[in-house]
Amino acid sequence: MANITKKVSWSSRADESAAAGEATPLLNGSEQPQHSRQVRLAWKLTWGDSLRGRPKEIPHNEKLLSLKYESLDYDNIENQLFLEEERRMSYMGFRCLEISRWVVCGLIGFLTGLIACFIDIVVEQLAGIKYQVVKENIEKFTEAGGLSISLILWAVLNFTFVMVGAIIVAFFEPIAAGSGIPQIKCYLNGVKIPRVVRLKTLVIKVCGVICSVVGGLAVGKEGPMIHSGAVVAAGVSQGRSTSLKRDFKIFEYFRRDTEKRDFVSAGAAAGVSAAFGAPVGGVLFSLEEGASFWNQMLTWRIFFASMISTFTLNFFLSIYHANPGDLSNPGLINFGRFEGDVRNSNILYFLVSRLTLFFLSGLLGALFNVLNYWLTIFRIRYVHRPCLQVMEAMLVAAVTATVSFTMIYFSNDCQPLGPESTEEYPLQLFCADGEYNSMATAFFNTPERSVRSLFHNQPGTYNPLTLGLFTLTYFFLACWTYGLAVSAGVFIPSLLIGAAWGRLCGILLASITSTSSIWADPGKYALIGAAAQLGGIVRMTLSLTVIMVEATGNVTYGLPIMLVLMTAKIVGDYFEEGLYDIHIKLQSVPFLHWEAPATSHWLTAREVMSSPVTCLNRIEKVGTIVDILSNTSTNHNGFPVVVQVPGSDEPAKLCGLILRSQLIVLLKHKVFVELARSRLTRRKLQLKDFRDAYPRFPPIQSIHVSQDERECMMDLTEFMNPTPYTVPQETSLPRVFKLFRALGLRHLVVVDDENRVVGLVTRKDLARYHLGKHGLEELQLAQT
Amino acid sequence: MANITKKVSWSSRADESAAAGEATPLLNGSEQPQHSRQVRLAWKLTWGDSLRGRPKEIPHNEKLLSLKYESLDYDNIENQLFLEEERRMSYMGFRCLEISRWVVCGLIGFLTGLIACFIDIVVEQLAGIKYQVVKENIEKFTEAGGLSISLILWAVLNFTFVMVGAIIVAFFEPIAAGSGIPQIKCYLNGVKIPRVVRLKTLVIKVCGVICSVVGGLAVGKEGPMIHSGAVVAAGVSQGRSTSLKRDFKIFEYFRRDTEKRDFVSAGAAAGVSAAFGAPVGGVLFSLEEGASFWNQMLTWRIFFASMISTFTLNFFLSIYHANPGDLSNPGLINFGRFEGDVRNSNILYFLVSRLTLFFLSGLLGALFNVLNYWLTIFRIRYVHRPCLQVMEAMLVAAVTATVSFTMIYFSNDCQPLGPESTEEYPLQLFCADGEYNSMATAFFNTPERSVRSLFHNQPGTYNPLTLGLFTLTYFFLACWTYGLAVSAGVFIPSLLIGAAWGRLCGILLASITSTSSIWADPGKYALIGAAAQLGGIVRMTLSLTVIMVEATGNVTYGLPIMLVLMTAKIVGDYFEEGLYDIHIKLQSVPFLHWEAPATSHWLTAREVMSSPVTCLNRIEKVGTIVDILSNTSTNHNGFPVVVQVPGSDEPAKLCGLILRSQLIVLLKHKVFVELARSRLTRRKLQLKDFRDAYPRFPPIQSIHVSQDERECMMDLTEFMNPTPYTVPQETSLPRVFKLFRALGLRHLVVVDDENRVVGLVTRKDLARYHLGKHGLEELQLAQT
Repeated sequence: MANITKKVSWSSRADESAAAGEATPLLNGSEQPQHSRQVRLAWKLTWGDSLRGRPKEIPHNEKLLSLKYESLDYDNIENQLFLEEERRMSYMGFRCLEISRWVVCGLIGFLTGLIACFIDIVVEQLAGIKYQVVKENIEKFTEAGGLSISLILWAVLNFTFVMVGAIIVAFFEPIAAGSGIPQIKCYLNGVKIPRVVRLKTLVIKVCGVICSVVGGLAVGKEGPMIHSGAVVAAGVSQGRSTSLKRDFKIFEYFRRDTEKRDFVSAGAAAGVSAAFGAPVGGVLFSLEEGASFWNQMLTWRIFFASMISTFTLNFFLSIYHANPGDLSNPGLINFGRFEGDVRNSNILYFLVSRLTLFFLSGLLGALFNVLNYWLTIFRIRYVHRPCLQVMEAMLVAAVTATVSFTMIYFSNDCQPLGPESTEEYPLQLFCADGEYNSMATAFFNTPERSVRSLFHNQPGTYNPLTLGLFTLTYFFLACWTYGLAVSAGVFIPSLLIGAAWGRLCGILLASITSTSSIWADPGKYALIGAAAQLGGIVRMTLSLTVIMVEATGNVTYGLPIMLVLMTAKIVGDYFEEGLYDIHIKLQSVPFLHWEAPATSHWLTAREVMSSPVTCLNRIEKVGTIVDILSNTSTNHNGFPVVVQVPGSDEPAKLCGLILRSQLIVLLKHKVFVELARSRLTRRKLQLKDFRDAYPRFPPIQSIHVSQDERECMMDLTEFMNPTPYTVPQETSLPRVFKLFRALGLRHLVVVDDENRVVGLVTRKDLARYHLGKHGLEELQLAQT
Repeated sequence: MANITKKVSWSSRADESAAAGEATPLLNGSEQPQHSRQVRLAWKLTWGDSLRGRPKEIPHNEKLLSLKYESLDYDNIENQLFLEEERRMSYMGFRCLEISRWVVCGLIGFLTGLIACFIDIVVEQLAGIKYQVVKENIEKFTEAGGLSISLILWAVLNFTFVMVGAIIVAFFEPIAAGSGIPQIKCYLNGVKIPRVVRLKTLVIKVCGVICSVVGGLAVGKEGPMIHSGAVVAAGVSQGRSTSLKRDFKIFEYFRRDTEKRDFVSAGAAAGVSAAFGAPVGGVLFSLEEGASFWNQMLTWRIFFASMISTFTLNFFLSIYHANPGDLSNPGLINFGRFEGDVRNSNILYFLVSRLTLFFLSGLLGALFNVLNYWLTIFRIRYVHRPCLQVMEAMLVAAVTATVSFTMIYFSNDCQPLGPESTEEYPLQLFCADGEYNSMATAFFNTPERSVRSLFHNQPGTYNPLTLGLFTLTYFFLACWTYGLAVSAGVFIPSLLIGAAWGRLCGILLASITSTSSIWADPGKYALIGAAAQLGGIVRMTLSLTVIMVEATGNVTYGLPIMLVLMTAKIVGDYFEEGLYDIHIKLQSVPFLHWEAPATSHWLTAREVMSSPVTCLNRIEKVGTIVDILSNTSTNHNGFPVVVQVPGSDEPAKLCGLILRSQLIVLLKHKVFVELARSRLTRRKLQLKDFRDAYPRFPPIQSIHVSQDERECMMDLTEFMNPTPYTVPQETSLPRVFKLFRALGLRHLVVVDDENRVVGLVTRKDLARYHLGKHGLEELQLAQT
C-alpha cells in the first residue's frame, strides 16, 4: 500500500461547483477516516500550471472513493426512548402501523401511476403539436424547395424544449439529470445522495423528462419514472413536506431511515410497474437492485404498490382515450400483443442456428458502455459548469435534429400508405402519392411508437439500408445523450437500437434461409434484439426478463429472452460493467456490492478499521461535544460512548453508540444535566423531537452554546444505542462485510477482548476494497 | 410466565416410535435448554391411567417446541484452517469455484428435469393401463349388470398401488410422506430435519408418488417435485453419496451447510420449475419460502437451474411424445393456452361484480386447513404406528374408489362425444350411443387432465349438479388424503377443487347475467377459482401469481389472479394459517419467521438466553471434553471457548466458539497436544478431515478414548471460530432476532461488558416466543 505522501483536500469539481451554487454538503460531514489515516493521493500532484491551479494529471475518478457521501442508517437505533415507545405500544398499535404501511404503499402506487399518466399525456400532446407543425411545414416546402427552413424550424423547436429542460436541471437541481436509477440504487444500498428524494427533484425531473422527450432527444421517459416513484414514496411515507413546510402529523413512526428505505423500494417498484406495465418485474427490480434482507411482508407491500400503480395508470389513460374500463395501457410503453406461441415452433432450431448472433448484442452493449464511460470522464473533467452543460445539451439537440433531417432528406425508402397503416404522422416527402417515407416515420415518432412499429409492422415495411443507417445514427446519438444534464432514461433508446438491428438481422436471415417458421417474422427478431441490447447495456437478468415478458404479454417468449439476456450479460461483463455501475463508480460512491471481494480473507477488521476513534463519555461535558462536532477536519458521524469505572484506572469500556444527528438534537434542546435539575417542569425529550428534526438535522454551526453552557454536562445514557453491534479485531473482512451488509449498518465498533473500543468500521472502509484486474485493489479516499 | 413445576422429559410419541424402528435421533443432540432452565410443562400430567402410562390430557402439539431438531449452521466457521485455505486460494481459484457452482446448478436442473420426466411417463403409462382395464371391465358389465365386480376390480387396483406406496413410506422412510414442502421450508429456514435430503428419501419419494397418483388418490405429483429437486441438489453439490459410500472427490469445497443451503434453494426452484413450467415462479418460490439474505449471483444461479430443469423436461417429453423439438410441455402440469386477452375485456366490470365471490375462496381454503388441522392432530395422537398408517391409506384408497364409482353410477350427465373431444378414456356407461358420462370423465383421468378439461372444455360440457357434487366429494377426499403416509402433493387437488367450483360459479353467473364478455366462458372462472382455492390453502401470493401466470401462458390474467390470491390470503389468514405452516407448527419445529413478534421489545437477551453455559478452555483436558459431550442430559452443540489470563484471578474471557461436530472430529483424529509433541511426523489435521466427516458426524459413544488419553490436553485454538458474533445482555429480542435470522446463525453468545460469557442464544430460544391471540405467548419445550 502506498505510503502517505501529502495531506491534501483536493477536489476536481469543488471549486467550480461551489461558485455555481452547488454547495457541497460537507457540513453534516461523513464517516471520514480518522486522525491517523490521512487522505492518500496516489497520483502526483503537479501544481502551478496555467489551468487555474489544476493539476495536469487528472485522477481517474473510478479509482477514488468520495468522502462527501454520508451513509443511511438501516439499523434501528434502539435507545431507551425507542424501547419505551415500543414497549408502550399494544398489539393493536402494531396492527394499525401495519395497516398504515399498506395504506402508504397504496398511496405511493396511486400517485406514481398519476405522475406516469401526467407525463404520458403531456408528452403526447406536446409532441403531437410539434410533429404536426413540422410536418405541415415540410409538406409546404417540399414542392417549393425551401426545406432548409423546415430544418431550422425543427431544430429551433427541439432546441427550445431541450434548452428549457437542460436549464432547469443544470441550474436548479443537477441531481435530477439522467434516469435516476443509479442514484436510487445507491440510496437503497445505504448511501445518502444529497437531495435525491426531495419534492423539488421530483418537479424538475417530471418537467425535465417532458422537455427532453418532446425535444426529440434519443431518450425515454421510463427510467425517470423509477426515480419519480422513489421520491413519491419518500415524501408520502413521511406524512409531511419539509420543502413546503407542511406537516400532516401522520406516519410519524416512519420518520427514520429503516422505514423510509422500505417505502422507497416500493416506490421504485411502482415506478417500474407504471413504466412497463410490469408489476412483478417491478418487485424483482427493487429486490435485484436494492434489497439485501428479504422480508415476505415487505415484498407483498411492494407488490401491492406495483399493482396499484399500473392499475391507476391504466385506468386514467383509458379515460383519457375516452374508453373507460378498457385496460389496454398498463405501462408507459406497450410492446403490443405478440401472437404466435414460441412453444409450438421449433425453438431448438432457432437456438442453435441464431444464438451466435446474440453474442453481437453483448458486444454492442459493451461498446455502448465503453463509449459512454469515456464520454462521462470527459464530462466530469471539462463539462462541469451548468452553462457548459446546457450548451452541450443544446448542441446534442441541434445535431439530433440535423442528422434526422439529413437522413430523412436523403432516404428514398418509400412505403405504401395502406388503410391499415398505424402511422400517426406519415410524411410523404419525395415519395409518390399514396406512399410515405419510412425513415421519416422512424424519426417522426415518440421512441415508444417506433419500438412498437419495429416489433409489429409487416415484413417489408422497412428496408435493410434504412434500418442499418438508423441503428448506426441512433446508437451514437443515444450514447452521446446519456449523461447530459437532462432528465432522461436509457431504456427506450436501448430497446430502439436493439429492435432496429434485431429486425435487420431478421430480414437478412429470412432472405438467406427462407424458413417458414414463426421466426420468419422480423418483428420477433426485433423483440429479441431489443432485449439483448437493453440487457447488454444495463446487465439485469432476472428482473429484465420478467419486465420484457410482462410488457410483451406472452410468456412463451420467456425462454429466448432469458437466453439472450444471459448471453448479453456474460459477453458484456467480459469487457465492461453495466451502465449504471459505471456511473456509480465514476461518481466515486462508496457502494457496497453483494459480497466482499473473493480474495479479501487476508484482511481483518484490524486492518480495515479507522483508529483511533473519538469516543464520548456517558456523561460528557457539553464543551467537549461541541468541539468534537465542530471539528471540520474529522467530521465524524458516529461516536462510541464509553464508561470508566469510577475510582479505577482501568481503561474505559464500550457502552453505547451515539450519532452526530442525535447530539445535535440534544444540544438544540439543551438537554443538560444541570438544567434538568434546576427546572424540574422542563419537558422530557421524546422520540418525537428526533423525528421532527429528521432528516434535515441542522449543522452544528447553527446551534448557539454559551460559555456557561459549555461547562454543563450531558447524560447520553437515554439517547445512545446501548447495544451496538461489535466485532473483535481478528474478524476477517468478508465476515465484517456480511454483518455490515446484511444488517444495513452505518457504524460497526471494533473492540478488543476487554470490550474496549479500538476502532470503527464504516461503509468507506469496506467499499475501499475491490477486485481489480490485478487482484484486490484499494481505492483512494478523496474529499471530492 | 408459568413457574417451573416439574422436570419431566416426556414424549407423546417416543415410546411407540422407538418400538417401531423410528429411532429418534437424539444422539447428536440439539441446542437444549441449559442446566438451570428446566423443561416446563404447562399442562397437568395425570399418570397411572389405563393407557400404558399415557397422560389423559394430551398436549396440543402446536404449543410445544420440540428439542429433537438440530439447527443448521448458515454462518461460516471462520477458524484458522478455513482462513488459511481461503488465503491460499488465488483469484483464479475463486473463479473456478464460481464456475463449478454454475455447473452444479446446471446438473441440478438437468437431473430434476429428468426425474420429473420419469415420474410423468411412468404415471401416464401405469394410469393408462389401469383406466383401460377398468373401462373395458365396466363396458363389459354395463349391459350384463355385474357392475359390482367392476367396482371391486377398480378398488383392488387402487388398493394395491396405494398399499405399496404407503408401505414403502411408512416402514422405510416416513419423512418421504406428504409433499415435502414443509420440510424443505424448514431446511431452508435452518432446521435440520433428519434424513430429509438423503438419496433413500428421494427413491421412496419418487416411487411413492407414482403409486399414490396411479392409485387414484386425490393427490398431485407436483409438490413432491420440489422435495425431489432439493434432494438432488443436496446430493449433487456434495460430489458424493454417503448412502452409496461413493466419493467422487469433487465439489469438496461445498461440503458445509452454507453452500449446501444455496444449492438446495436452487433444487427447490428447479422442482417448481419442472412441476409447473415456471422458472421465474420457481425462483420466487425459493426466495419467498426460504431465503433470508438475497444475493444477486445466487439468484441468477437459481434461475439458471430452473431454466435448465424446465427445458430438460420439455425436451425429453417432446422425444417421448415422438415430436422432438416441439417444446409444448414445460411442466408436469400444463394449463393449456388461454385465448382472449383480459386487457381488452371489461375487467373493471368483472372486478366489481365478481370479487365478492372470491371471499368464498378464502373461506373454503380456511375450512380445508381447519379440517386438515384437526385431522392431523387426530393422526398424531392415534395413527402413529406404521401399520395403522398403511391401513388408513388403504382405507382412503378404497373410499375414494367407492365414492367415485357411486357418483359415476348415479350420475346421468351425458355429453355428446364429438370428434374434437379430447377425453382419452370416455366412458359410455348408461349414456346413449355417441355420448359419454362426464362425471366418469372427471374421475377417470389423472387430476392434471381433469384440471385442464375444466379450464378449456366448451361451455356446457359439465352440468352444474355434476360439478357441485364433484367439488364436495373431492374437497373432503383431498382434505382426508393430505397428511396420509403417502408421497403426495396438495397443489393439484386444490386446483381441481377450485376449478370445479370456479366453473360452477361461472355457469351460474352466466345463466343469471347473460354477459357477452370474455367472462362468459366458465373456463376463465375455473382458472380464477383454481388460483383462489390454491391460494386459500397454501397462502403464497407473489410466487403463486407468477407460477399461475407462467403455467397459463397469458400475462393478462395476472391482475385478476393477483387480486384473488390477495383476497384469499387476507380472508384465510383471519381464520387459520397456511397448510404448510400448520404442519410445521404441529411438528413442533423451531421455525424462525421473518421478524420477531411485534410486541417483543420488552424481552432482552438476558431473558431469552440459556444460562449458565458450558464453556471450554482454549487448552482443555480431553477427559473433560468427552464427559461434556457424553452428558446426554444437556446435549449441547456449541461451546464458547474461554481463556483465563495465567496467574490472574480475573474471570475468563470469551475467545471463540467450537461445535460438537468439530470436537468429535478432533477426538476421532486424536489431536492431542502430547501426541503432537511426541510424533512430529504426524499429519496435521486439515479442513478436508472435517469435510469428509460432514454431514454425518459419528456420535461420541462410538469414539474410544482410553484412560491415558483422557489425561491429555487438546488445543482448540486452530479449530474454534475465533470471532463468534456476540451481543450484550441488554439487547432487545427483535435485535437479537434480526442478527440471528439475517446471518443464519446457530449460536449467538451473550457477553457482559467485560467480554465474559453469560449466556447462549439458540434457535429455540427465539422460536419459543410467538404472537398468539392474547399477545405474546411462550411455547413449551419438549423432548418430543
